[in-house]
Amino acid sequence: MRWAVFFFLATVVATCNADCHIFQEGQIYLLRPRFGAAGHRLEGLDCLSWRLAVETNNLQSWGTVPMSCENYIGHYMLGKQYRHDCELVADAAIKYAKGLNLSGDGKDIWIFDIDETTLSNMPYYAQSDVLFGALPYNDTKFNEWVADGKAPAVPGALRLYETLLSLGFKIVFLSGTKEQFREVRTANLKAVGYHTWEKLILKGDADKGLTALAYKSKRRTELVNAGYRILGNSGDQWSDLLGDNIGNRTFKIPDPMYYIG
Amino acid sequence: MRWAVFFFLATVVATCNADCHIFQEGQIYLLRPRFGAAGHRLEGLDCLSWRLAVETNNLQSWGTVPMSCENYIGHYMLGKQYRHDCELVADAAIKYAKGLNLSGDGKDIWIFDIDETTLSNMPYYAQSDVLFGALPYNDTKFNEWVADGKAPAVPGALRLYETLLSLGFKIVFLSGTKEQFREVRTANLKAVGYHTWEKLILKGDADKGLTALAYKSKRRTELVNAGYRILGNSGDQWSDLLGDNIGNRTFKIPDPMYYIG
Repeated sequence: MRWAVFFFLATVVATCNADCHIFQEGQIYLLRPRFGAAGHRLEGLDCLSWRLAVETNNLQSWGTVPMSCENYIGHYMLGKQYRHDCELVADAAIKYAKGLNLSGDGKDIWIFDIDETTLSNMPYYAQSDVLFGALPYNDTKFNEWVADGKAPAVPGALRLYETLLSLGFKIVFLSGTKEQFREVRTANLKAVGYHTWEKLILKGDADKGLTALAYKSKRRTELVNAGYRILGNSGDQWSDLLGDNIGNRTFKIPDPMYYIG
Repeated sequence: MRWAVFFFLATVVATCNADCHIFQEGQIYLLRPRFGAAGHRLEGLDCLSWRLAVETNNLQSWGTVPMSCENYIGHYMLGKQYRHDCELVADAAIKYAKGLNLSGDGKDIWIFDIDETTLSNMPYYAQSDVLFGALPYNDTKFNEWVADGKAPAVPGALRLYETLLSLGFKIVFLSGTKEQFREVRTANLKAVGYHTWEKLILKGDADKGLTALAYKSKRRTELVNAGYRILGNSGDQWSDLLGDNIGNRTFKIPDPMYYIG
């Protein structure tokens, strides 16, 4: 009951500040409460909570970054936290990959999505008329950016890629990018350091009308039917990591800028 | 190439501080770099990255919270952010639930895990000999806490629960708790406000030896075979939300204190 009271106080009392120690030991104290004196929730979206809900797939089919979070997402993407979050995903994937025994028959593969997984569109999204996804998606403008072929690598991705190659993995890129961009994407991947791969799967006419989840499931199933073993699967969207034949382990790269279902 | 240089600078240059503006427009600037002058990564685990990797299932089968993150996790759990993260999950689930058309035949269910999903063990985990999961799990001690039946509700959970009942959902609690605790858990649930449910499924002798993922998949499959439609599924562990018959939508409640596979 004491703790029920704690939760109550923690949410209702509006007079506590950072000096209000609940526990002296371990320096645990009550931070600024988010609830008003009458128990009503304070106005305003907590952008940290919004980002966590996006990364855990609790929020789905959202269209744009909430305008009130544009500044927060911009700082997150350009500051150290996004880079460090990406590096830790690479660390976890490398630790997992090094613990595996590969067959050596060339059928052990790691699937990488491209956008926000191996190539970063952050230079595009940072523009003042894109606002890190807080303004509606513009297909024409984004395709012009892709056609430029100037995307840098996502932090940590090249380190994982090189480690996987050295361990004997074959790399498969599986992207929602359309076939018409094959040449420029190939050049972009090579320019930043992705120098070799088993397959580069892009979206063709036969995939038209499929959701991203259905398209990726279909192509992964084709790989499995061809005898490949999907040991790892890296993507920034949950539609990369759910569905059929998702692989033995999936790795979610942060991306709070857009949602693809 | 300009952006490759940006990533390079952002990771290597060690002289930049919060006044170092990359973009004047939109107040986007480079935060404190995480890499030393020679390109080596700075020592120390970034606890925010660690928590994100846990919540997105990138880190699996971990035993304890890293000791260097104990203080951070304690502040997170007891401060406003955990509560607010939980409230936003409830908001998202309520928004989804209100958009559904229920059949009215009493077969539309929402599955809730118990620990860290509907009942909070934070009073236990905050103890100085538990340290928010930074010390190894002690089965005897934890069972004593469960037997006390004093767990408060997880923030946001009662609000979601009441909304679901008012919409016509039947509630199913599906927990890894053992059958021997049925009476005390029932009393605990009722004491904090969970006053009614369709089923309270606990782990029996027939479930011995199953992983959490296998046990929960098996029990959900039984529900589906009995004609229930799982429209929502809330849990703090990915083993609640992956496997067979996971439901139409899953909702991941934050829990950086322990891992159950």
